[in-house]
Amino acid sequence: MTDFAATAADLDAADPLGHWPGRFVPAGDDLVAYLDGNSLGRPPRDLPAALDAFVRGPWADRLIRGWSEGDEPWMDWPLLVGDELAAAALGAAAGQTIIADSTSVLIYKLARAALSLSGPERDEIVLDAHNFPTDRYLLEGIAAETGRVLRWIETDPELGVTPELVAEVVGERTALVLASHVAYRSGYLAEAAAITAVAHDAGAPVLWDCSHSVGSVPIMLDAWEVDFAVGCGYKYLNGGPGAPAFGYVAARHHDHARQPLQGWMGHAEPFVMGPGYRPAAGIRGFVTGTPPILAMVPLRLGIGDVAEAGIEAVRTKSLALTDFALSMIDELLVPRGVRLGSPRDHDHRGGHLTISRTGFEELTPRLWARGVIPDFRRPDGIRLGLSPLTTRFAEVARAIEVVVEELDRV
Amino acid sequence: MTDFAATAADLDAADPLGHWPGRFVPAGDDLVAYLDGNSLGRPPRDLPAALDAFVRGPWADRLIRGWSEGDEPWMDWPLLVGDELAAAALGAAAGQTIIADSTSVLIYKLARAALSLSGPERDEIVLDAHNFPTDRYLLEGIAAETGRVLRWIETDPELGVTPELVAEVVGERTALVLASHVAYRSGYLAEAAAITAVAHDAGAPVLWDCSHSVGSVPIMLDAWEVDFAVGCGYKYLNGGPGAPAFGYVAARHHDHARQPLQGWMGHAEPFVMGPGYRPAAGIRGFVTGTPPILAMVPLRLGIGDVAEAGIEAVRTKSLALTDFALSMIDELLVPRGVRLGSPRDHDHRGGHLTISRTGFEELTPRLWARGVIPDFRRPDGIRLGLSPLTTRFAEVARAIEVVVEELDRV
Repeated sequence: MTDFAATAADLDAADPLGHWPGRFVPAGDDLVAYLDGNSLGRPPRDLPAALDAFVRGPWADRLIRGWSEGDEPWMDWPLLVGDELAAAALGAAAGQTIIADSTSVLIYKLARAALSLSGPERDEIVLDAHNFPTDRYLLEGIAAETGRVLRWIETDPELGVTPELVAEVVGERTALVLASHVAYRSGYLAEAAAITAVAHDAGAPVLWDCSHSVGSVPIMLDAWEVDFAVGCGYKYLNGGPGAPAFGYVAARHHDHARQPLQGWMGHAEPFVMGPGYRPAAGIRGFVTGTPPILAMVPLRLGIGDVAEAGIEAVRTKSLALTDFALSMIDELLVPRGVRLGSPRDHDHRGGHLTISRTGFEELTPRLWARGVIPDFRRPDGIRLGLSPLTTRFAEVARAIEVVVEELDRV
Repeated sequence: MTDFAATAADLDAADPLGHWPGRFVPAGDDLVAYLDGNSLGRPPRDLPAALDAFVRGPWADRLIRGWSEGDEPWMDWPLLVGDELAAAALGAAAGQTIIADSTSVLIYKLARAALSLSGPERDEIVLDAHNFPTDRYLLEGIAAETGRVLRWIETDPELGVTPELVAEVVGERTALVLASHVAYRSGYLAEAAAITAVAHDAGAPVLWDCSHSVGSVPIMLDAWEVDFAVGCGYKYLNGGPGAPAFGYVAARHHDHARQPLQGWMGHAEPFVMGPGYRPAAGIRGFVTGTPPILAMVPLRLGIGDVAEAGIEAVRTKSLALTDFALSMIDELLVPRGVRLGSPRDHDHRGGHLTISRTGFEELTPRLWARGVIPDFRRPDGIRLGLSPLTTRFAEVARAIEVVVEELDRV
């Protein structure tokens, strides 16, 4: 039997990103392995000082002047931090990305914006039947209120959206294609460029939900000719619970696409406060309310960390982590009746793996009680989220050993 | 000539809330008087420690378990903190208030929810022609997308909405009345109960924007039979730049009103992740995305401060501050050509005063350069925002003395 603990120690020792877990606030001693950084990332060690500095500095001292004065006036933050993320992790030129709202609110805004590009003859919204619930629920509501229907991509739940499956359902009635770059359950990494091209061939724009890829898998929004994209700030970007999300709108759509939440911060001249809404030029017209400045402080740190480590190095570590986990799953878990619910090949593998077995719903709290923290996804999946900057190989080894011990106790 | 500095010193010495300004993080020595706490409040002195404790405690230690475990699982926070605010400052029973999104996004959601209560025969949205821009812009967009028209309440910009003015424009075509409880410019305090009754007599619900009253003026949403309300977290509640807002929906509307941003956090069973959106019962159905937990940490402190001081005591101090400012305006500024653009009587006076004069746009940066920080509102208004927990009478005295000095230098 392979000595996985020894292998993990070797991998950690040789890991060029091996110092990164030490740059995050340590958890208590009861935490043995955190395998849910794909759901809620860990706080950077520098964060308490950064928050303290923000509260005592710009906020307490500059007060209302913070919006307009200083090196980085807060009015600029939605675009400034958006551009920082775009450069670090989105493959997007400046001026196309904002930080604002929750992921769900941004999906609503950008889906509505995408629909504003076509007329009523395009009455179908195409989306993955196994997409993350908030995407499905939001589009269900949008379809109802805009007189459209949902057209489902019938994906394999243990895989994800493919160009072939999308090609089967798009056509001249398609108003929008919404899909996840990395599937929340299987971790399937979609061929974003090819799927975007399939949608474009049918004359439809694409909205990519990058919640499970941003900060973990390289994204090339501009090169892939993506139209719209959103993603979470609190997963691999470590922005903290409920961190604001990002929204991307390709520059070619800025003058045409219109989102309906036309608040003052998206106005061309917000402080003129005159009659009539007139959207700001560029991506700013997609901002709605007062931007969540304080909540961007942790997110900026997290984005800076990805920039410093480099998204390609992050991806290399991510694949090494999932490769190692797969070797343990194959040797230790498959013989115990566990099924891999995620792709094996690198080209279609995101940052997390899902393993399935009857009884995993009951197993999960027992893992938690032993300080091994993955999450459970119905009906029978345990997600092993391996966040490259915060997860050590040793955690993976120990976590799967504990799974084995608990399975053998049944 | 009255010795206003001496009067201010006496008022500060006798002020039962006089210790409160010392409970906030001091600004730098260059700040002489901060009169914009109605736009961005100050950080509580306890906030850096609270943020540090949150990052190192629940976030770093509990990690994903924070959503479901501990004394106050984060899943409960939108309603938990909403109820704290409801008890401290809204006069609302539990279970009707959430903390979520920006004020603008909540206006969109609750206005759409209000419109869902009536049919197409009610095709007019009634709102104050001088309401805050984001309210007007959002409703302009909503009218366009729902096939309704805007019907303006032609208010005096130096006063605000009255029952009589509202009665002139509401009727059987009214789908919704939107107004501000305290006008952002004049500070006019509207008769919310009477106006709500006028709207109800016409069969229409009311959405009150309480951004400029919450935490400063007592609000009795339940007793006034208000239908919907929203308000800012970063003004008198001191929640920090871009703090999340509150939204209130009266319990009687929970089963009928529907908002269109149907995200997973408003689903009856968010973690079942099944097909089809089914709104949660009660106010939770008005939540959309993952709630901004970290951003609620400062807001909770601010709400706790209002609860501890007591909203009636806050209001008493507020009126004393504006009374004192008015005495100085009358004696020192009116003879220098300054006009009061705010109501004089307590019953219609909110927490801030606007003074107007030609040249005030140019005067404002000179005041700022001297450490006196009000804000400017076009065309010629300077707003003196007097935040009861953070403003000393001495600041008011010094600020108006500086206005006098600068006017006399012209």
